[in-house]
Amino acid sequence: MKIMILGGDGYLGWPTACYLSKRGHQILSVDNFSKRKIENENGINSILSNLTIQDKINNWNKNNDNNIIFEMCDLLNHRSIYKKLEKFKPEVIIHYAEQPSAPYSMKDRSSAYFTQMNNVMGNLNLLFGIKKYCPTAHLIKLGTMGEYGTPNIDIEEGWLEINHNGRKDRLLFPKKPGSFYHLSKVHDTNNIEFACRLWNLRCTDLNQGVVYGNETDELKEYPDEMGVSFHYDDIFGTVINRFISQAVTTKQLTVYGKGLQKRAFLNINDTLRCVDLSLNNPAEIGEFRVFNQFTETFSINDLAKIVQKASRDLGNDIEVINLENPRLEQVEHYYNPKNSGLISLGLKPIPFDNLLAKNMIKKLENYKEKIDINKFLPSLKWKN
Amino acid sequence: MKIMILGGDGYLGWPTACYLSKRGHQILSVDNFSKRKIENENGINSILSNLTIQDKINNWNKNNDNNIIFEMCDLLNHRSIYKKLEKFKPEVIIHYAEQPSAPYSMKDRSSAYFTQMNNVMGNLNLLFGIKKYCPTAHLIKLGTMGEYGTPNIDIEEGWLEINHNGRKDRLLFPKKPGSFYHLSKVHDTNNIEFACRLWNLRCTDLNQGVVYGNETDELKEYPDEMGVSFHYDDIFGTVINRFISQAVTTKQLTVYGKGLQKRAFLNINDTLRCVDLSLNNPAEIGEFRVFNQFTETFSINDLAKIVQKASRDLGNDIEVINLENPRLEQVEHYYNPKNSGLISLGLKPIPFDNLLAKNMIKKLENYKEKIDINKFLPSLKWKN
Repeated sequence: MKIMILGGDGYLGWPTACYLSKRGHQILSVDNFSKRKIENENGINSILSNLTIQDKINNWNKNNDNNIIFEMCDLLNHRSIYKKLEKFKPEVIIHYAEQPSAPYSMKDRSSAYFTQMNNVMGNLNLLFGIKKYCPTAHLIKLGTMGEYGTPNIDIEEGWLEINHNGRKDRLLFPKKPGSFYHLSKVHDTNNIEFACRLWNLRCTDLNQGVVYGNETDELKEYPDEMGVSFHYDDIFGTVINRFISQAVTTKQLTVYGKGLQKRAFLNINDTLRCVDLSLNNPAEIGEFRVFNQFTETFSINDLAKIVQKASRDLGNDIEVINLENPRLEQVEHYYNPKNSGLISLGLKPIPFDNLLAKNMIKKLENYKEKIDINKFLPSLKWKN
Repeated sequence: MKIMILGGDGYLGWPTACYLSKRGHQILSVDNFSKRKIENENGINSILSNLTIQDKINNWNKNNDNNIIFEMCDLLNHRSIYKKLEKFKPEVIIHYAEQPSAPYSMKDRSSAYFTQMNNVMGNLNLLFGIKKYCPTAHLIKLGTMGEYGTPNIDIEEGWLEINHNGRKDRLLFPKKPGSFYHLSKVHDTNNIEFACRLWNLRCTDLNQGVVYGNETDELKEYPDEMGVSFHYDDIFGTVINRFISQAVTTKQLTVYGKGLQKRAFLNINDTLRCVDLSLNNPAEIGEFRVFNQFTETFSINDLAKIVQKASRDLGNDIEVINLENPRLEQVEHYYNPKNSGLISLGLKPIPFDNLLAKNMIKKLENYKEKIDINKFLPSLKWKN
């Protein structure tokens, strides 16, 4: 299939291109490098994946039949995305092209504004482009489990059958996002659902949990400089990736608040499979379909225990310390999100367990010297 | 009180300034003139209210003790709104400063983009400004009943107590907006609710029905060139105002589709009272309060009948014709929105009845020659 990947330079964009190239698809990958710019502004970078996206793709193309093509494209420039859609005529569009950091979005006005501008207005341009040039293309859009927040009811997949005063309707699940980044995804959800209703576009919105992992099956055989863009810092480093990085350096896992807050997680290899399952089982014309894309839920304390035990098994005792929570989060809460959609399509989840944690630690031991331990602590507070 | 009115040049902004000036408040009115620009682009203008906002205010100030001040301000320029907030230090901010036309937002990519940019990103700048310069100010934000769409359940006021699988929570009422304009208001709702939760801002979100009326009590005694900016065109003219204008010219009321679609309405004088009730009974610190600001519901056919009868009583027989509906609307639907919040604060609704319709017709008869009958028909289709 002809597949366009938006945000092709990112943590998920690059591995997705490789995964789908391996499976015979024709890939056009685009990016506006806004994440690289935020890295530069904050003096951070990823410790694996040192090559430019162009060099990674050149190396990849030498060893694989299905060439990946890369082009620069900013969704805020509607003419730029229109041209790509007109020329490439994608059958599937995988949309990762959004500022992905909740902490960054909470830094100040400028970063909140950039986040909603880049994500919401960029996505709006994309919808008009799809309508104009490839209205039957299947849009696979990355949302987030963080759109829901932590309501006191079971979290269904995107829609909720509501009974109220003796009548009922199926409506979008009411959201309670916890950052300007998460809000941008809620706005996207609403805009896309309308576009499906109005223009008969077809979309699968993947409300993804927190992704972790420092390698994928397709990139394992390549040198790490070709690998995933692994972050451990307080802006782009998600909790498991950070804990693993702390385990191999400071031996101190920093838990925000009491650590009782629960979230949904998945392995980066499962992200790729979920996207693949979605594209092989597309949404119907006019359908706005939502999957909750995660495999397990953990409290932050659960995760700390798994990493602590794995580290101890490898001969390193580490401690778990609690920091004042920089975020706006409920301390204790109910959390029961559903994820049967992707499971019923055949997803076989990879568990985050002792073995996996040990493997992540062992791989990262090789990069110990490159980890800047000053980047672990939260520099951005929600209530600044 | 020190009250800032954003969107002070508009249909509601100007009458609100006069209403509140009369009641002893100190008013700073600002506008970016984006509605005037859209009028110019589309060759339309209002038939009353021909003066500039500056001249209207100059005339007003000659006859009233409490001077209204007007300044240019665009919310997309955060420095501009920051400066006004810092200097004026408003106790109340009434926020009408949004592109108000659903049909305009559906014209093309550019108009949809402008609508969400102006409304959502402008409102985001405003929230950061309030947090920085006047965090206890009461934000009175105009939303719309169109955020809800026409769900098959009773429409509560902003929030809904949801029972699901034996558990319950109070969450934002799930929305089903029907245009990029209505979506912009939903995005605002979500951003503001978060700002209240995060920064303890206080907001009353007024989900307003369709406003009608060609005069207010405060402006009645002034020449019509000082009056409300009355529109009958397909972009800014709402249905009752258009029907009245058609009654005095073509004698043909054009109903979109079967006319069975029901909506919520209120008189422009009631808008002013609702805003006044809200500011005299402010939201608590940290509260995101929602009122459904309407007084009556009608089907479009109900309205056509009232206007037809009023016209006949004045000696003019008019016909009602049905056009293909240019919008995305349910043909027949349940509609039961609640509005007890403002009623319980003391609102005494003005009904849209035979007498009121006759008065509107009589006033507009004086302006018959100025009405361009080519502007009645819908030029913009939702599925263009």
